[in-house]
Amino acid sequence: MMLAKAFLSATVVVSLSATVVAQNNGSELLRYVKPTTGTARMGHVFPGATVPFGMVQLSPDTDTIPYEVNGRYNPDVYKYCAGYQYEDKTIVGFSHTHFSGTGHSDLGDLLVMPTVGTLQLNPGVASDPKTGFRSTYSHDNEEASPAYYKVKLDDHNILAELTATNRVGVHRYTFPKSDQSHIILDLMHGIYNYNEKNVWTFVRVVNDTLVTGYRQTHGWARTRTVYFAMTFSKPFKSYGSKNFDEKQAYRGFWGRFDQSRNFPDLAAKKLRMHFDFDTKEGEQVMLKMAISSVSQEGALMNLRTETPGWSFENIQQQGRDLWAKELNKVVIDADDNETKENFYTAMYHAALSPTTYMDVDGRYRGLDQEIHTAKGFTNYTTFSLWDTYRALHPLFNILQPKRNGDMVQSMLVHYDQSVLKMLPIWSHYANDNWCMIGYHAVTVIADAAMKGVPGFDANKALDACIATANRRDFDGIGYYIDKGYVPEDKSGSSVSKTLEYAFDDWTIAQLAKKLGRMDVYETFMKRSENYKNVYDASIGYMRPKLNDGSFRKEFDVLSTHGQGFIEGNAWNYSLYVPHQPKELISMMGGDKKFVAHLDSLFTMHLPDEFFAGTEDITRDGIIGNYVHGNEPSHHVAYLYNYAGKPWKTQERTRMILKKQYHSGPAGLGGNDDCGQMSAWYIFSALGFYPVAPGSTYYDITSPAVSKAVINLDNGKKFEIETIGQSDKNVYISKILLNGKPYNSWQLNHADIMNGGKITYYLSAKHGK
Amino acid sequence: MMLAKAFLSATVVVSLSATVVAQNNGSELLRYVKPTTGTARMGHVFPGATVPFGMVQLSPDTDTIPYEVNGRYNPDVYKYCAGYQYEDKTIVGFSHTHFSGTGHSDLGDLLVMPTVGTLQLNPGVASDPKTGFRSTYSHDNEEASPAYYKVKLDDHNILAELTATNRVGVHRYTFPKSDQSHIILDLMHGIYNYNEKNVWTFVRVVNDTLVTGYRQTHGWARTRTVYFAMTFSKPFKSYGSKNFDEKQAYRGFWGRFDQSRNFPDLAAKKLRMHFDFDTKEGEQVMLKMAISSVSQEGALMNLRTETPGWSFENIQQQGRDLWAKELNKVVIDADDNETKENFYTAMYHAALSPTTYMDVDGRYRGLDQEIHTAKGFTNYTTFSLWDTYRALHPLFNILQPKRNGDMVQSMLVHYDQSVLKMLPIWSHYANDNWCMIGYHAVTVIADAAMKGVPGFDANKALDACIATANRRDFDGIGYYIDKGYVPEDKSGSSVSKTLEYAFDDWTIAQLAKKLGRMDVYETFMKRSENYKNVYDASIGYMRPKLNDGSFRKEFDVLSTHGQGFIEGNAWNYSLYVPHQPKELISMMGGDKKFVAHLDSLFTMHLPDEFFAGTEDITRDGIIGNYVHGNEPSHHVAYLYNYAGKPWKTQERTRMILKKQYHSGPAGLGGNDDCGQMSAWYIFSALGFYPVAPGSTYYDITSPAVSKAVINLDNGKKFEIETIGQSDKNVYISKILLNGKPYNSWQLNHADIMNGGKITYYLSAKHGK
Repeated sequence: MMLAKAFLSATVVVSLSATVVAQNNGSELLRYVKPTTGTARMGHVFPGATVPFGMVQLSPDTDTIPYEVNGRYNPDVYKYCAGYQYEDKTIVGFSHTHFSGTGHSDLGDLLVMPTVGTLQLNPGVASDPKTGFRSTYSHDNEEASPAYYKVKLDDHNILAELTATNRVGVHRYTFPKSDQSHIILDLMHGIYNYNEKNVWTFVRVVNDTLVTGYRQTHGWARTRTVYFAMTFSKPFKSYGSKNFDEKQAYRGFWGRFDQSRNFPDLAAKKLRMHFDFDTKEGEQVMLKMAISSVSQEGALMNLRTETPGWSFENIQQQGRDLWAKELNKVVIDADDNETKENFYTAMYHAALSPTTYMDVDGRYRGLDQEIHTAKGFTNYTTFSLWDTYRALHPLFNILQPKRNGDMVQSMLVHYDQSVLKMLPIWSHYANDNWCMIGYHAVTVIADAAMKGVPGFDANKALDACIATANRRDFDGIGYYIDKGYVPEDKSGSSVSKTLEYAFDDWTIAQLAKKLGRMDVYETFMKRSENYKNVYDASIGYMRPKLNDGSFRKEFDVLSTHGQGFIEGNAWNYSLYVPHQPKELISMMGGDKKFVAHLDSLFTMHLPDEFFAGTEDITRDGIIGNYVHGNEPSHHVAYLYNYAGKPWKTQERTRMILKKQYHSGPAGLGGNDDCGQMSAWYIFSALGFYPVAPGSTYYDITSPAVSKAVINLDNGKKFEIETIGQSDKNVYISKILLNGKPYNSWQLNHADIMNGGKITYYLSAKHGK
Repeated sequence: MMLAKAFLSATVVVSLSATVVAQNNGSELLRYVKPTTGTARMGHVFPGATVPFGMVQLSPDTDTIPYEVNGRYNPDVYKYCAGYQYEDKTIVGFSHTHFSGTGHSDLGDLLVMPTVGTLQLNPGVASDPKTGFRSTYSHDNEEASPAYYKVKLDDHNILAELTATNRVGVHRYTFPKSDQSHIILDLMHGIYNYNEKNVWTFVRVVNDTLVTGYRQTHGWARTRTVYFAMTFSKPFKSYGSKNFDEKQAYRGFWGRFDQSRNFPDLAAKKLRMHFDFDTKEGEQVMLKMAISSVSQEGALMNLRTETPGWSFENIQQQGRDLWAKELNKVVIDADDNETKENFYTAMYHAALSPTTYMDVDGRYRGLDQEIHTAKGFTNYTTFSLWDTYRALHPLFNILQPKRNGDMVQSMLVHYDQSVLKMLPIWSHYANDNWCMIGYHAVTVIADAAMKGVPGFDANKALDACIATANRRDFDGIGYYIDKGYVPEDKSGSSVSKTLEYAFDDWTIAQLAKKLGRMDVYETFMKRSENYKNVYDASIGYMRPKLNDGSFRKEFDVLSTHGQGFIEGNAWNYSLYVPHQPKELISMMGGDKKFVAHLDSLFTMHLPDEFFAGTEDITRDGIIGNYVHGNEPSHHVAYLYNYAGKPWKTQERTRMILKKQYHSGPAGLGGNDDCGQMSAWYIFSALGFYPVAPGSTYYDITSPAVSKAVINLDNGKKFEIETIGQSDKNVYISKILLNGKPYNSWQLNHADIMNGGKITYYLSAKHGK
């Protein structure tokens, strides 16, 4: 323990940060947020306008790539998980719902596009934008900041500006002079579209400024309905629609109406609409689009409640204020601008998901497709839990426990509405999409409960955790319970599942213990050791085991495909025992052997072919054989702490921060994964990380910031100060906690939440 | 006026009927109802179980004919408007919603079929029933009576019995001994099905006796959703489903579940399910299926409120009591059993539509697809108004004014929810299907208001009538307003439209006058004379006029196709001026010429080819050139009253009653049209008919009953007595009203509603 040496200099620390914070409300932090960071390549974030955790996330979509071509999966679709690709030269319009950083997709509802000239109701193709309503644009004429997005649509000579409230997207279009100005509402558009995705659309043109309706889809969310209410600042002079459903077999007696022109009562599978205006040079037409999962009336209520007027600036300012408040929760200082941009862009990306999922009156459509009311909490959706249980929800437990308590409560009502009696796996919009593995909602719940987060009934939550972990017909759980592992010949990715179930089980056990339910504790502690059942001591790796109890013969410890793992290989995944690292190290041969394994991960050189098919990351998302762009290794750099080499944790995390996060469109090495990658950045940059959520400790590393103040919701502040911070001084020589020498590599949650200060003395030299 | 002769014998009349009524509650009338009457050929009624105006109308469907074959309309589908054809040898199952007597179709939701043996999830074909779950059956083993239907399913050796409450279908299946007993729930089945009709289906198996979900379709109702909650009297031992959507492009990550076996969370476009049981010999398994337009919760509430227990007999008895009450509103006596069967079967068919359309708490899905609450009224749907404005709604104004007031209120909330600002044309299930012509809701409203029916705001109703009649883009109304007629080259069936608009306008004028809105009265009285604009005096017929003001040159007064008329030819339709028969007679050349025209209608012989393509009737529905099976002539026989030949009205209506209505499956000559044909029977058999709804008078004819008592809701009784009734004594020699000589061929509504007695003296001889 090298910390013991340097107790004496504690008193030299001065508190500058607190003074800085007192002078502002966070608005000066907005400029560090770069929403375009990660919009190129595989970051899969969107540059558009939204408020923190907003239901509406209004953003440009740059193409209309179908999920399927000629009945086969179209791999190009993957680029458009968030609708926008920085490299693209055209914009097809602005849609109101987006995922941030996912590796599979959906949404893109209610695309709006202003145009001028001959009406075109097809988007056209990127290679020849004049074939449709899409427009070329230039990044020179584009601006993205929190709650604001602006772009010049060159082909139409229209300036488009976007802002948003929680449930309303607000558009302001500055038109040229024209008697053929149009605003197109594309109700077919969507992300990950295939031919049968649009299930139904219903539209009512209530009057010459108000349109309501809904769009119902079958996609990643199997049964999803988005209601809307859209209003214009200026009455349209005419409107129309086209039904693109070439297979429509039955039209009944609706043919007596000309439904294509000025007809207010529309319903079909595939509709595009247009609203026509005369505009003067420089005339601004605004549009507000509210959404709801409940009803058109709900959308209209959201519209009227959140955006009563027509001041774009006021709405934008409200959004910026919300963001300032969010960013101000951690006020950092850093020597270089890029660290600030990385940090606050991460803070921004870490506040995009989960998304609000209820109307202003608390009503929402539940998993059972029935209308429910959230009583006493804000209901959220977009739970990418395989990603976010690791660091994003733990981050919320520090920065916004109230919100995370509501997220837990949202998962519990999901459970109540689940006919399978399961907590969410990957849920969005009244659906579980069942993406990825594990039952990590239990970890989010246990972590929140262990950290005293309010807002839910912990005993009821434990019951939901137990029921989920005992759903025998889900993903090998029955085998796992009976045999202590998931057999690879019964359920693929079997080792990943076994390891993650074991960790999740440990978190259930922790919660049970806290609640005094010792029988549950015993059962799940026993299950939490199941990782041992897939460890093959003869080779020193976790290895897929068959139903007959033998390890699978064919096995490649480097390949990421078909080896019993998902988004990782055995080399990485064998380290996935976050709850019992000491036991893992011992099982793997002790500190020395373990450190060598860790080192090899970061230093080995592997040919590209090993990563050719790795999901959700670019080649840059990989360091040696360490895959930071995917999540299973996120705790790995911290394991040195348990093997007697904390300086290597410090060195590695500082190195990863530098290598994996950059400002600029190509700045993210892989999917941001609904904020998990960003949460890793925030924790690691601040000098601690939740290796085992469900515990109350964090593992300490070397901060990348020079100082930081965490403004806690409870009114207290936790300060992080570094002495000697530099790019070279990545090693911790000493730590003081509240001025006293601190002799552990684990920081307690209570020490943060009680307020205080941690001081890191940094050096260019490390211990042994 | 031949009545004046015979004042003196008034006092011989004795009141027997009142005594009869006092002895019973109507239950003895149930035996005269033959639900199978009209189930053969084109009656298009269903034999299944329902309560009066029930939301659930649970009935066997005898085939699964698609609306389309190879992309073309399949004319065979027409036979199955009500799902059942008496001639068929197999039953595919029992579905919960049906139209009664329509000529176009929809519904057939939630088909349930019990089977034994190897599971089959396809219905199979009628020519080889063993190819599917359908079963042969025999009419010998079939029984249909109010609120009860029974049939033996021979192929499965299962006795099926059905009964119903308003919102719940109740099934009782008596199984043989088997460990392979199944109950199939076919969520794809429907009436007028085509490949894209099923839009979406969602199902939750809540536990081993309860299943909830919804089915959403796009058909005659463009956007329709039926929620359900289904419960079994015995837990199923297993269950499963099959998704028949061969085009399903996207399955997401649901593949990790085996959704075909015991999986409770289902959603797809095309689902069939099965529930499996072990049954002992003779074991009865019951099933209750509740529906709702609101939600699964709404269906469950309906289920629990209306059918709390499992006594089939109790539920059936409740239903029979409701029917007895309904039938008891008119207690007749007649010399022959067939007249009683015809009369009470007509009373039954006249109480099947409109259907209740709200949950037990008053909530329902409105035309805007939003959830509304019916406050202070029962909400109804299934408004086949082109048919039912003539006699069915007028009948309701006598027999159940409260219900008809609610029906008017239902049309007014439809109007409120209509973004087109129109009253219903032909509406069902939160949709207008726009079938047929005119805007006859205005007549129903005016008739109810003129007759003092309570339950709606007459001024508001008038506003709705005016708005509807001024919807210029609907069906030639703009031309009609501007030119005084609908030009045939602008809108087909132009003469029928002009004539019907003119009549509807007259009813609007009557309502306006009653409300003292004389400007409206003047405007619509002027419009009501527009029939004159399509009368071609040179030929003595109504004739299609072109936009340039000239009559169309090519014209065939007998053909029913392409001549400017719908469901009728010029010979019949030229008589359609119900509001101004005297002016019509004058316009057509006076009494003598007019009577000759009327006579020719009934006596001319026309070759079959003239009727080959006539809609909705069989050859039997025609007498000479008089088409009783369609509605435009329903008032025609009464027009003799206005041309000085009332005895011919008497002769003709008695003849029509005999020729057009019979007991037995083939007893109806054409579609019953949601009760309009039956209402004609009831009125005419009682001796009076509403030639011009919107007025307060009825035209008198010779009753076919020997006596009748109308038990009015206001507690009063109106008695009809005949002196000298026989098949030959069809002519009225004298009428007494309340014992006093009655010297008019019109009977006033008030005279009925105030209670009293009308006595008809009948004779075999007629006047001149």
